[in-house]
Amino acid sequence: MRSLLLPIAALLSSSSLAAPPADLGYELVEGLTTEVGQRLAGTEAEARARAWAVSRLRSLGFANVRIEPFDMPVWVRGAETAEVIAPFPQKLVLAALGNSGATPEAGLTAEVVGFPSLDALKAAPDARVRGKIVFVWHRMTATQDGSSYGYFGAVRRSGPSVASKKGALAILIRSIGTDHHRVPHTGVQTWSDGAQPIPAAALSVPDADQLERILSRGKPVTIHLVLTPRMTGTHQSGNVIAEVPGRDAGAGVVLIGGHLDSWDLGTGAIDDAAGIAITTAAAKRILDGSKPKRTIRLVWFGAEEPGGFGGDAYARAHDREKHALTAEADFGGDRVWSFRASLADPKGALTAELTNVLGGFGVGPGAGAAHGGTDIGPMVQRGTPVIDLEQDGTRYFDIHHTADDTLDKIDRAQLNQAIDAWSAMLRVVADTDDPLTPLPPREGH
Amino acid sequence: MRSLLLPIAALLSSSSLAAPPADLGYELVEGLTTEVGQRLAGTEAEARARAWAVSRLRSLGFANVRIEPFDMPVWVRGAETAEVIAPFPQKLVLAALGNSGATPEAGLTAEVVGFPSLDALKAAPDARVRGKIVFVWHRMTATQDGSSYGYFGAVRRSGPSVASKKGALAILIRSIGTDHHRVPHTGVQTWSDGAQPIPAAALSVPDADQLERILSRGKPVTIHLVLTPRMTGTHQSGNVIAEVPGRDAGAGVVLIGGHLDSWDLGTGAIDDAAGIAITTAAAKRILDGSKPKRTIRLVWFGAEEPGGFGGDAYARAHDREKHALTAEADFGGDRVWSFRASLADPKGALTAELTNVLGGFGVGPGAGAAHGGTDIGPMVQRGTPVIDLEQDGTRYFDIHHTADDTLDKIDRAQLNQAIDAWSAMLRVVADTDDPLTPLPPREGH
Repeated sequence: MRSLLLPIAALLSSSSLAAPPADLGYELVEGLTTEVGQRLAGTEAEARARAWAVSRLRSLGFANVRIEPFDMPVWVRGAETAEVIAPFPQKLVLAALGNSGATPEAGLTAEVVGFPSLDALKAAPDARVRGKIVFVWHRMTATQDGSSYGYFGAVRRSGPSVASKKGALAILIRSIGTDHHRVPHTGVQTWSDGAQPIPAAALSVPDADQLERILSRGKPVTIHLVLTPRMTGTHQSGNVIAEVPGRDAGAGVVLIGGHLDSWDLGTGAIDDAAGIAITTAAAKRILDGSKPKRTIRLVWFGAEEPGGFGGDAYARAHDREKHALTAEADFGGDRVWSFRASLADPKGALTAELTNVLGGFGVGPGAGAAHGGTDIGPMVQRGTPVIDLEQDGTRYFDIHHTADDTLDKIDRAQLNQAIDAWSAMLRVVADTDDPLTPLPPREGH
Repeated sequence: MRSLLLPIAALLSSSSLAAPPADLGYELVEGLTTEVGQRLAGTEAEARARAWAVSRLRSLGFANVRIEPFDMPVWVRGAETAEVIAPFPQKLVLAALGNSGATPEAGLTAEVVGFPSLDALKAAPDARVRGKIVFVWHRMTATQDGSSYGYFGAVRRSGPSVASKKGALAILIRSIGTDHHRVPHTGVQTWSDGAQPIPAAALSVPDADQLERILSRGKPVTIHLVLTPRMTGTHQSGNVIAEVPGRDAGAGVVLIGGHLDSWDLGTGAIDDAAGIAITTAAAKRILDGSKPKRTIRLVWFGAEEPGGFGGDAYARAHDREKHALTAEADFGGDRVWSFRASLADPKGALTAELTNVLGGFGVGPGAGAAHGGTDIGPMVQRGTPVIDLEQDGTRYFDIHHTADDTLDKIDRAQLNQAIDAWSAMLRVVADTDDPLTPLPPREGH
């Protein structure tokens, strides 16, 4: 009896046979954010997230579930405090930017020099900046397509190098965010050639507005700043890969996914557990339907936030394989409102079919080329056709890269609409007769 | 020439002659929150706030501007971190409650036992609680009249004593708040007779929801907690008083105001710079108009947050003076939507006049007795007639006692409506022929 019953019991309890959860997308976000939480790239938390991912993807029945590890330099946050010493003593809330340099352990005290924009900082004579703490208060506004991030985000990406080269002791920026909460927005910045690392941090939006008001009184403003982040050396990260096998190995792979790592302040619900959940739930629907012509390869990329290390590692490992098409979800959990496709034949039957199918979900064709995201960027640059399903970004930068990026920010109805749109798009591109001819290689952007 | 011109120049620059700012209410909130910032009771920051207050009230032309100092015990925040050790390692965001005990410097580690409400904690056998960290996740909901605070706030006010008496090592509560941000809500709690102080803190709402989810997985949950607040001894606080002198010294004083101190996390814009601004701007309109029959006494009370020390000190110093009526603004900066009056003759001409005048601002009569607030509570208990101009509290507990209590939360249009309603009410009660007969003394509430 025992030898007969046990295998049956094991079979019945095998989660690969369990019905998919009715609300798989939300359950993935809930599980990853609750059972792992923050998962900074290259840390043990991200390793736990990979283990969680492998277990979950296998239990969902995906094929070829595996981790492809890679190494990367790891930066970690330390202490971070700021205090106005004069003229109006008070503490300010801030967060170091990725790759920020450190103050001495005891901190540094210096006068603040403020600028309304990165351009104003660039135009300032070095003598105005040297030996001071630079503060740039450029205000970002919310946009549905997220386009304001490119322009206003430049203060974060290159402001620290500009300030350093002018001899600043440190730089504080107004958070690249559109909320009004005391939760600063971190994010990566990289030192340009010749720029010495200096302490670089974002003040929360209310704190930046406060410092701007304090400066407006016209008295010298002195700040005591403590920031002790550090580089911890080279550590392992990895991409987690799972597949829905196709019927035609020669038809090329459809590469989709989001990123598994998050910043360390929140639990990465909208950035990017949501993207992982949307692409995984959509792929699961294909897995549960008729076998597609093309293999769908789902990647939960590692180490996107500090600079796209996972996407680079994927491209190095896989760029000789035939990729039919790629798409990425890394813009939150809200609804898809528009799509763009960059295809060799932009006016062909595939575009018409996508327009028709996506229109059923309220998703209209958008203007301009599709770009993908950081993770699939290297494959897009190599000429892989790409589709962007654009999600509503109106509230994305309220939350992005803050401690507020938590499960409660997920709107289940919108998440499910995005999964519906993704599923429909995937079914079309996995089976289309369009040859999905590669495009000419692109410049990086 | 010099001897003639200088006094004229001094006169022209005298701020007491300057026209009142067009938007005095907002300017007071902006000034106090920017130039002082947080102003925890009994600290040097609150002393700076008093100096700021005296300067501002004198420059506005009020009479008898003075500080009435008093002493009080002072509690200050220390380090505060919490980390889930098992089963899902992650940090949680929290803030110590007023008068919280401290953990050892290195913290304490213990298993968590969760309860859905204060009543459930009370009903639990001591053995379930002893040696553990108690967590109560009772959810507060938003109400326009703020009435949910009384019921749900009991977890904060008395939960720590209940947990301590049952042998808990510490207590964590879900913030008494209605937002979804990583900004915990602090607030005072007092140890009941026989309760040994233990560490007591509020998790932010998303962190409390997270801990509730972690507990729901059914595995033992262990937390490492560091809280190092301390009592710093007896220090000075004070009430700042200013008056609009009346024509009839025998008609009694109309006592109004709000509180100058704030919690230490935000800059106290809605709690209670707004209340100070509303009552001051309204009193300034009376000052600038025809001389009132009754003296209006404006008090910026000290040390309300840790337990109404300013209100108690005021009552001790002034309760032999004749008080005709009192009213307080300590419920944010949003619009007045309702009023209640507790008068000896509730159906007299004064009630009819108030109803008529306030109706012009969209303010209707509400049900029940008026209670005033903490600062004027002792005078209300002694039988002083009282009017409540009830402000909209729908979003008040999103912000209350958090780092998010900052200037950007002030809605100028609503603040000005409140000032209009207060000005109208003050003009009526300052000049009314109603004798404003005292009421019988009340029980404390």
